[in-house]
Amino acid sequence: MKQLSASRSVTLRLKFPNKIGMLGKITSAVGKMGGDIDAIDIVNTEEGMILRDLTVRTQDDAHLEKIEAALEKLSDVTLLHRSDRTFLLHLGGKIEIKNRIPLKTRDDLSRAYTPGVARVCMAIHEDKNKAFSLTIKKNSVLIVTDGSAVLGLGNIGPEAAMPVMEGKAMLFKEFGGVDAYPICLNTQKTDEIIKTIEAISPGFGGINLEDISSPRCFEIEATLKKRLKIPVFHDDQHGTAVVVLAALMNAAKVVKKNLVDLRVVVNGIGAAGVAISKILKECGVKTLIGCDREGIIYAGRRKGMISVKREYAKMSNANKEKGDLNDALKGADVFIGVSGPGALSRRGIKNMARDPIVFALANPTPEIMPEDATDIARVVATGRSDYPNQINNVLAFPGIFRGVLDIRASEINTKMDLAAAIAIASMIRKEELSEDYIIPGVFNRRVAKVVAQAVSEAAIKSGVARRDKKVGRGRSKTS
Amino acid sequence: MKQLSASRSVTLRLKFPNKIGMLGKITSAVGKMGGDIDAIDIVNTEEGMILRDLTVRTQDDAHLEKIEAALEKLSDVTLLHRSDRTFLLHLGGKIEIKNRIPLKTRDDLSRAYTPGVARVCMAIHEDKNKAFSLTIKKNSVLIVTDGSAVLGLGNIGPEAAMPVMEGKAMLFKEFGGVDAYPICLNTQKTDEIIKTIEAISPGFGGINLEDISSPRCFEIEATLKKRLKIPVFHDDQHGTAVVVLAALMNAAKVVKKNLVDLRVVVNGIGAAGVAISKILKECGVKTLIGCDREGIIYAGRRKGMISVKREYAKMSNANKEKGDLNDALKGADVFIGVSGPGALSRRGIKNMARDPIVFALANPTPEIMPEDATDIARVVATGRSDYPNQINNVLAFPGIFRGVLDIRASEINTKMDLAAAIAIASMIRKEELSEDYIIPGVFNRRVAKVVAQAVSEAAIKSGVARRDKKVGRGRSKTS
Repeated sequence: MKQLSASRSVTLRLKFPNKIGMLGKITSAVGKMGGDIDAIDIVNTEEGMILRDLTVRTQDDAHLEKIEAALEKLSDVTLLHRSDRTFLLHLGGKIEIKNRIPLKTRDDLSRAYTPGVARVCMAIHEDKNKAFSLTIKKNSVLIVTDGSAVLGLGNIGPEAAMPVMEGKAMLFKEFGGVDAYPICLNTQKTDEIIKTIEAISPGFGGINLEDISSPRCFEIEATLKKRLKIPVFHDDQHGTAVVVLAALMNAAKVVKKNLVDLRVVVNGIGAAGVAISKILKECGVKTLIGCDREGIIYAGRRKGMISVKREYAKMSNANKEKGDLNDALKGADVFIGVSGPGALSRRGIKNMARDPIVFALANPTPEIMPEDATDIARVVATGRSDYPNQINNVLAFPGIFRGVLDIRASEINTKMDLAAAIAIASMIRKEELSEDYIIPGVFNRRVAKVVAQAVSEAAIKSGVARRDKKVGRGRSKTS
Repeated sequence: MKQLSASRSVTLRLKFPNKIGMLGKITSAVGKMGGDIDAIDIVNTEEGMILRDLTVRTQDDAHLEKIEAALEKLSDVTLLHRSDRTFLLHLGGKIEIKNRIPLKTRDDLSRAYTPGVARVCMAIHEDKNKAFSLTIKKNSVLIVTDGSAVLGLGNIGPEAAMPVMEGKAMLFKEFGGVDAYPICLNTQKTDEIIKTIEAISPGFGGINLEDISSPRCFEIEATLKKRLKIPVFHDDQHGTAVVVLAALMNAAKVVKKNLVDLRVVVNGIGAAGVAISKILKECGVKTLIGCDREGIIYAGRRKGMISVKREYAKMSNANKEKGDLNDALKGADVFIGVSGPGALSRRGIKNMARDPIVFALANPTPEIMPEDATDIARVVATGRSDYPNQINNVLAFPGIFRGVLDIRASEINTKMDLAAAIAIASMIRKEELSEDYIIPGVFNRRVAKVVAQAVSEAAIKSGVARRDKKVGRGRSKTS
């Protein structure tokens, strides 16, 4: 049976006679159809009738229809209105602008705007770096997408990408205290995307590229990194890589293997697959095999060898193994899937070495469902919140950007990514570690703080910090 | 003497013996130097000494230095620290992002982000217009500048323009309830500006162009208006024109003249001068003379006739008058200066018709100071807050954008500008009107509401509204 989901919660407004027993009939009708009642509210009563709002969790549209049909079949019950809580909370958007200082009097106005603001402008004109303290640049991140690869939804365009980017902005604020603003571009041309982001960058302290399809995302990121003096971070690559590495570090401890000795198979060589592979190489993993729809990637393969894959062949599969995914999995310690639903079979897992580690990260439907894998794999992780070991980027990006903004880093380099991964992994103490607990939970508020600290320190060590850590927001001296 | 200003308010931290009479010595030293004490706070006391913060209004840096010198001359008084309140309140920027809904639990996350958000994305993918209700597009305005003509400061670039744009965003929120985000561009090329704004427009419900120098601003606005289906409004042009028209409507009533019969001289044919002239023509003003540094603009003039001026010659000065500003002012009813300090002489005013109306709008130093004009001009207005009749765009743009967002207008047309001007003028009742009160105060909260209402209605009448007025933010039905 499909799972009931809070994201599929609807509120049904029902009218029925205000008599003993009626409500019981209704709730049991919902229960029989497999709906879960979250709340029952009285709207009003009139002339012997009562109006109630029933908030019900459902599986999907078909399930909701069944529940509604069951309610409408009850004599005396009328379904007046249905509202979908997920849509309701999106009305008007999920973020807003807030003034940080009052603007109620002439004096307020003369300081925050003309004429006082002119002196602040001129101070920045004389020294651009002052924008980092005297403007929102200090704490602002641009979330930017072209809407070409949004969640698992594909190329849905800029308007339709907005709800995801707004959600991302919420996560930045909630977990990292970062003011992130979402900009969705109505161009999908690589050079136009680069030029646009460059043009709008001056007011931001960092840039989070999001849901831009592969392989364009690589060129866009690389070019912007060269041109801009603020961090540019493609979360689908590096955010994912950081969290996967953190989880893998802990999974290796659980199965008592060394990270560097692992044979790792990465299935799906897009933005995430490439970045995961690179960070694993950086950590010294020696045996890395990449697979795509054509099977194992090797130097000299003919089919589908776009430049990204040619580069990938150079950094992986030193023995030029050939074959399909199941061939790759022979003797593998780790499977990391960033591909699609059902890509991994039980047979594949059975080919693996002792204590298989399976990260099936395709979302919402993994490469193999955990219930089909846990009897033969030792550690299973997915991107889903309804199974143990959720690999979720929110463990990385809020803390990483908090860390770089705090010390005005000019970039996010590999050392900072590694520091973030180690910090995340370290959140679980040795004695807590288990097959079902290799990665901290999404709502563990300490993660972002620990990550920020580690990233700041790594930035300072690697010489890309432009300020000292100690001075916090709004506490600098001014004269 | 220069005026004391809240925008030049500093806090001085003084240490001195905690004895009777000391504070009196200090305050009288400040008073003697012409400083005005706003506040005296005790920081702490220790070993017979006391630490106090004196908040003092000053004229400018030189004045502050004199006050500090006088304090340091007092025996036993040590000046420990000085902080500038205007800079202090700019630390970390003036706006921030706020989440409109909670993100504390799994259920919150599953609705605001994955997996629930996917359904909202797909609803917008199927019907782009739903972005107006389900995303921040509903209430968001892009404030965009290239930093080429910021306040009276000139071409100071994108970083230095940020404090002004943030201030503008504050005004949008405070007066119009509009969520405006400032983007400062690091290009000043017309075609790049246009392309960039077009590329980042999908998430916004309107665009406010700001402080882009003339004549580029005209082409940028005109091209974007053609290409985008959301309102594009260059505030330096139209915001100014709307408020000037409102003030002139009331000034004409004060001097008992008809608007259409006025001879109006506009000095300074940049963004504001052109827009003011156009809106006056729209209202039926028959005699309009434009002047620039070369004098009166007429068809066939040789010097400085860039295309904007040639166009201007066509719409004005039907009799092809020639000469300088003073020639233009002979018999004029109205002078409108959007030029520079000291551009208007007393002789110029004396040349005018009975009851001269003088709008000296150069900021911060007007074309003529009010004290030099009020004995010979009947009505004097400036852009300054420290004289009567302040012509300030904040009377227009928050209400105009509130009005267009409320009804999802596709553009802001001349009829909507006129409606806004009439609404602003109408805020002063006939019996209240006087030489010193032709325009409502900046802090009159009713202005934006009345303007919004008038603009919405004008949009509906002119067929550019895309929704019915009644449904407010967050109250739409969802299924």
